[in-house]
Amino acid sequence: MRIVRALTTCAFSFRHRVISTHLPHTRSFLKPYTGAPYSSATMAAAAEDSLRQALAQKQSSIEFQGNAVRQLKSSGASKPEIEAAVQALNALKLEKSSIESQLQAAAGGSSSASRDAFRQNVVNTLERRLFYIPSFKIYRGVAGLYDYGPPGCSVKSNVLAFWRQHFVLEENMLEVDCPCVTPEVVLKASGHVEKFTDLMVKDEKTGTCYRADHLLKDYCKEKVEKDFSLSSEKAAELKHILAVLDDLSAEELGAKIKEYGITAPDTKNPLSDPYPFNLMFQTSIGPSGVSPGYMRPETAQGIFVNFKDLYYYNGNKLPFAAAQIGQAFRNEISPRQGLLRVREFTLAEIEHFVDPQDKSHPKFSDVAKLEFLMFPRDEQVSGQCAKRLQLGEAVSSGIVNNETLGYFIGRVYLFLTRLGIDKERLRFRQHLANEMAHYAADCWDAEIESSYGWIECVGIADRSAYDLRAHSEKSSVALVAQEKFSEPREVEKLVITPIKKELGLAFKGNQKMVTEALEAMEEKVAMEMKADLESKGEVEFHVCTLGKNVTIKKSMVSISKEKKKEHQRVFTPSVIEPSFGIGRIIYCLYEHSFYTRPSKGGDEQLNVFRFPPLVAPIKCTVFPLVQNQQYEEVAKLISKSLTAAGISHKIDITGTSIGKRYARTDELGVPFAITVDSTSSVTVRERDSKDQVRVSTDKVASVVREVTDGVSTWADVLKMYPLHSSGTAEE
Amino acid sequence: MRIVRALTTCAFSFRHRVISTHLPHTRSFLKPYTGAPYSSATMAAAAEDSLRQALAQKQSSIEFQGNAVRQLKSSGASKPEIEAAVQALNALKLEKSSIESQLQAAAGGSSSASRDAFRQNVVNTLERRLFYIPSFKIYRGVAGLYDYGPPGCSVKSNVLAFWRQHFVLEENMLEVDCPCVTPEVVLKASGHVEKFTDLMVKDEKTGTCYRADHLLKDYCKEKVEKDFSLSSEKAAELKHILAVLDDLSAEELGAKIKEYGITAPDTKNPLSDPYPFNLMFQTSIGPSGVSPGYMRPETAQGIFVNFKDLYYYNGNKLPFAAAQIGQAFRNEISPRQGLLRVREFTLAEIEHFVDPQDKSHPKFSDVAKLEFLMFPRDEQVSGQCAKRLQLGEAVSSGIVNNETLGYFIGRVYLFLTRLGIDKERLRFRQHLANEMAHYAADCWDAEIESSYGWIECVGIADRSAYDLRAHSEKSSVALVAQEKFSEPREVEKLVITPIKKELGLAFKGNQKMVTEALEAMEEKVAMEMKADLESKGEVEFHVCTLGKNVTIKKSMVSISKEKKKEHQRVFTPSVIEPSFGIGRIIYCLYEHSFYTRPSKGGDEQLNVFRFPPLVAPIKCTVFPLVQNQQYEEVAKLISKSLTAAGISHKIDITGTSIGKRYARTDELGVPFAITVDSTSSVTVRERDSKDQVRVSTDKVASVVREVTDGVSTWADVLKMYPLHSSGTAEE
Repeated sequence: MRIVRALTTCAFSFRHRVISTHLPHTRSFLKPYTGAPYSSATMAAAAEDSLRQALAQKQSSIEFQGNAVRQLKSSGASKPEIEAAVQALNALKLEKSSIESQLQAAAGGSSSASRDAFRQNVVNTLERRLFYIPSFKIYRGVAGLYDYGPPGCSVKSNVLAFWRQHFVLEENMLEVDCPCVTPEVVLKASGHVEKFTDLMVKDEKTGTCYRADHLLKDYCKEKVEKDFSLSSEKAAELKHILAVLDDLSAEELGAKIKEYGITAPDTKNPLSDPYPFNLMFQTSIGPSGVSPGYMRPETAQGIFVNFKDLYYYNGNKLPFAAAQIGQAFRNEISPRQGLLRVREFTLAEIEHFVDPQDKSHPKFSDVAKLEFLMFPRDEQVSGQCAKRLQLGEAVSSGIVNNETLGYFIGRVYLFLTRLGIDKERLRFRQHLANEMAHYAADCWDAEIESSYGWIECVGIADRSAYDLRAHSEKSSVALVAQEKFSEPREVEKLVITPIKKELGLAFKGNQKMVTEALEAMEEKVAMEMKADLESKGEVEFHVCTLGKNVTIKKSMVSISKEKKKEHQRVFTPSVIEPSFGIGRIIYCLYEHSFYTRPSKGGDEQLNVFRFPPLVAPIKCTVFPLVQNQQYEEVAKLISKSLTAAGISHKIDITGTSIGKRYARTDELGVPFAITVDSTSSVTVRERDSKDQVRVSTDKVASVVREVTDGVSTWADVLKMYPLHSSGTAEE
Repeated sequence: MRIVRALTTCAFSFRHRVISTHLPHTRSFLKPYTGAPYSSATMAAAAEDSLRQALAQKQSSIEFQGNAVRQLKSSGASKPEIEAAVQALNALKLEKSSIESQLQAAAGGSSSASRDAFRQNVVNTLERRLFYIPSFKIYRGVAGLYDYGPPGCSVKSNVLAFWRQHFVLEENMLEVDCPCVTPEVVLKASGHVEKFTDLMVKDEKTGTCYRADHLLKDYCKEKVEKDFSLSSEKAAELKHILAVLDDLSAEELGAKIKEYGITAPDTKNPLSDPYPFNLMFQTSIGPSGVSPGYMRPETAQGIFVNFKDLYYYNGNKLPFAAAQIGQAFRNEISPRQGLLRVREFTLAEIEHFVDPQDKSHPKFSDVAKLEFLMFPRDEQVSGQCAKRLQLGEAVSSGIVNNETLGYFIGRVYLFLTRLGIDKERLRFRQHLANEMAHYAADCWDAEIESSYGWIECVGIADRSAYDLRAHSEKSSVALVAQEKFSEPREVEKLVITPIKKELGLAFKGNQKMVTEALEAMEEKVAMEMKADLESKGEVEFHVCTLGKNVTIKKSMVSISKEKKKEHQRVFTPSVIEPSFGIGRIIYCLYEHSFYTRPSKGGDEQLNVFRFPPLVAPIKCTVFPLVQNQQYEEVAKLISKSLTAAGISHKIDITGTSIGKRYARTDELGVPFAITVDSTSSVTVRERDSKDQVRVSTDKVASVVREVTDGVSTWADVLKMYPLHSSGTAEE
């Protein structure tokens, strides 16, 4: 006797296939979102459209006028007549060129040029100051691998420490630390072995590999931005492709590549048809060579496989969250976009396990009043803008599926803005129905606007019970939770009891398949069968594993509903998963923090990173104003007290001018500089305002500590200490 | 014209081979040291020897007496006579069994049994409380891969935070963060591709792989500890093998395995000859499959390849240190010893770059007065004990090669003991000459005694210029430093100028080889040639790349010494490398922190970890004494103020008895427990003394903060607050 579950075996295996198909979407971390028709884009498209039409009209006017000039000349018209016609032609040409520049702007060409220039400036500064370095540079590097140099490493460790404080400690999460090397069976269960792929094409002669969607995207973008002869119909077609790029199948991609005659960018050779390439780095575990393994493409699986132990550790109580910070690996086909798409990166992931029947959150009220840019599904589909919403209302109105999901959206917002991400360039975008795996209840991405566009930096998904179920099935270890009832509850259960002897006699070798199909019947089907058997004595029954109908007689199966007392409810918890791409957040933070200002002489643009003290790689520098033993000793004493206060700092005793030394540290984003210009008191300078105050030598460490720890603000400091007129200072 | 360098081309390639051969020693991180004849071992060996002899004597006495008894019986002797003889025989047997127990103790059998029992107790506690978990347990796991569960993860992050504070911040090191995925060229340069191997044997029938040295070691140990019939000569032979195990070649290992008839442990099948197996996890970078890569086996190479940028970042000044914390990977043949030998682990490595002509350290005086157990080479070789030495004296007497190396030894000592490693079970062991790479100036391992014996946990090596030179050669990027002279210095340089035209005429196709050989001459050889050419006009010259002699005429080469003014010295820096196996340190810390004490009733042994607050996974627990809303609210208020003070803590509101709750947290090593037994004041209990004081509700968070931050001690707290008599308490 076996109690029938909701899903039949046949449906299950089908379901698994569908789930896996969705995997690239649900784990699309490194794919910047390109699809949805944003409202601003929609308006721009209309403008662009009319410009293209105007341009086409102007072009025919020019042709017409050109013919007119030629005719006048050949017909020997008067000089003034010809000159007037030529003038009119030139005027038309001028008008055409003006429309062209407008079109370039509208199509994103010129704004993309200015974004590129800004990015180049940021990236040059970052690389020159060793925030990051292409890895293995002396060996000409490897695409998609980067080192964090000293200031970058420090920023990263500050971001991670704050993440741990903000999420793990404040929320009492269970942090775990699992290996990167992962045996194949785990990633088969999760679906990665089968479906964690990108579509690739090969140069048919050289074998060089390209991402199929990248080539198509580049082609379309180039055409739209730079080809002014494009008809507005063609432009619309290419833009549509850009919008649906992520949804194209291998066949569709291949057809488009053929249709547009796209060839290998380096050689112009023909390309192969697109085919899937698995993005995991493969290896072999142990010496025998028969145990395949992969470098994990995400950290989440390490948490799922430990669910049972973690649930026990938490006293067999829900909800609880587990968290993990660690390296993840994706063997990208052709990495680009610098730090945004890399082959190895740090993920910080949370798996919050919750009873699917109760997704309320006790601390939701702490974040309910927050207001920020949200971009719900409906707004995207109807071509509207992201809009400012109050989180509490978004949850109560059902825009956000549940309180726990909402709570994490709020916490992510606080996390990112406290790091220094600009509120105005941060939005929470809801996944469209077709972006989301069918098992997911709701998904929101924290997107940050950078010079590359809106970048998905945190994914916050309600993945329902999918992951735990997948590992339960594959491992045969039940990953479930129990709710003990205070009093036993009476429930009615469907009981299907196949009569093995009768079935054996009737179906012989097929008995097992028929039995399983009977046991797998859903309630409705079973109750119909029961009625039929009672009235007719037998019934036709389709066994999908046999691919045919069989005749079931009354003697072969007993179907009934029984009342049972249950003392507990056993269920697979839902999981709500906020997943942070640390490198992406840091890169966006760099762009949001970067600005330039003229040097004192106005002859140079100086670079500044306006990092908050929380993330600044060094909190403070100490400069003896001139090279002088007395000042250097004071500087060393201050350095000692800063070390004791736990403030990371640097002494610069080079004889360089104080202005240059300030500029150097502004470029590292150091928020405060202490200049030793006497033995009793020193000046403290704030990076962005360039204000300076005078503080006594013995107090300066504690002043800097308070303002970097956030106990006081720079405004407080300005009130308490005399402003220093910048006689000796930089400006 | 080319200025001759010190080393010729031929010598160079030879040298490279020799260097690589030494690599397994210099990077032997995960190999517990088994070799050196320790003094205590020597004394024990003498005792064991005489026991074995006594046992053999006793055995022959027993045989003799046995025969006597039999003879008496068969000859029909009187009953009292026989009984007396039997009694004598039994007495002899008793004496024999006493000697056997002594021998078992001397040979380590019984003490190893008690060590095993202790370890089992620690490991059970660690696994039960999720300090660590075998990875992918629900899929039956993978040998050598472990997850850190919540308390283990917290201990690890505390250890790493302290490492960063103690080394990176206090020493102003340049921290970097490089990828784990490493292209082959880098690890070819470092020698890992060729030589990072262990010797493996295969079961000839099943193909199961074993580490050859492990099998031989197990055989010898088993024999020595458990086979009492072993002659003392045979015992000495097996012990010698144990001592030199690491130095045995594949051929020697294979011969011993054959000689002793060692077979596959599981099947008793014959074994293959030993052959090298590379311990790196191999993978492929990018989609083409033609770029081999490896998961890095250490983090150091990421620093070396960045030397040029880091030197520039440091203002082109030496000395400076770079540091890196990260995952490293070694595909062990058959991992064992739990957390001590794993396939993926966290390393923290420092590369301190220094002028080889000046290895003094400005802060050496800070550590010079430290005294601790050191085990210099001479003491090991002469069979003496590790001895307590003052670090300053160890450096000034030349036992430790230089101040910088000494400084790091001192800093490592402070780091480990502050974490809670027992001073008496920590020693610094110098590498023997044959353990060390020939290029290394000096090496010391911080070894910690655990139930597995003395375990190498930190290696501190002066690796001279080896690593930078290797990457300079392979990448053709000069990884060098400059010392600018304040005044130019006059130096005499050998100048060898081959006359290409003459050489071309004489040697045609071989001209290049002859030219290179001439340019590569060392000073002495060149000056002899010059003299010979001047006196005789020509000279025979061996060109090793041609494998023969050629005749060099006076017209073919000009050799002279020229005086040159030099403005700077260009040199390859030496590197001093402290390298920390974080997982090993943590495991030893667990063993050193673990103890048991009887429960109040005396019916149970309770487990305690005496972690210092610095590493404790949770600093404090909050217990409402009974389940009661008032107390729970006080508990929540205290929890809020603890969070604000940055103290990781946990509330336990289960109704379990307070004694059980204390026991539970003692087992996690939580140093303080706050019990809420009134609304105005609470008790604070210290884990090891079980002392309790009464503190007012509003002050308790700051009291706990001060004592966990190390601002005050528990003794200070005892002085300031009234002792709480344990009416309500556990004991």
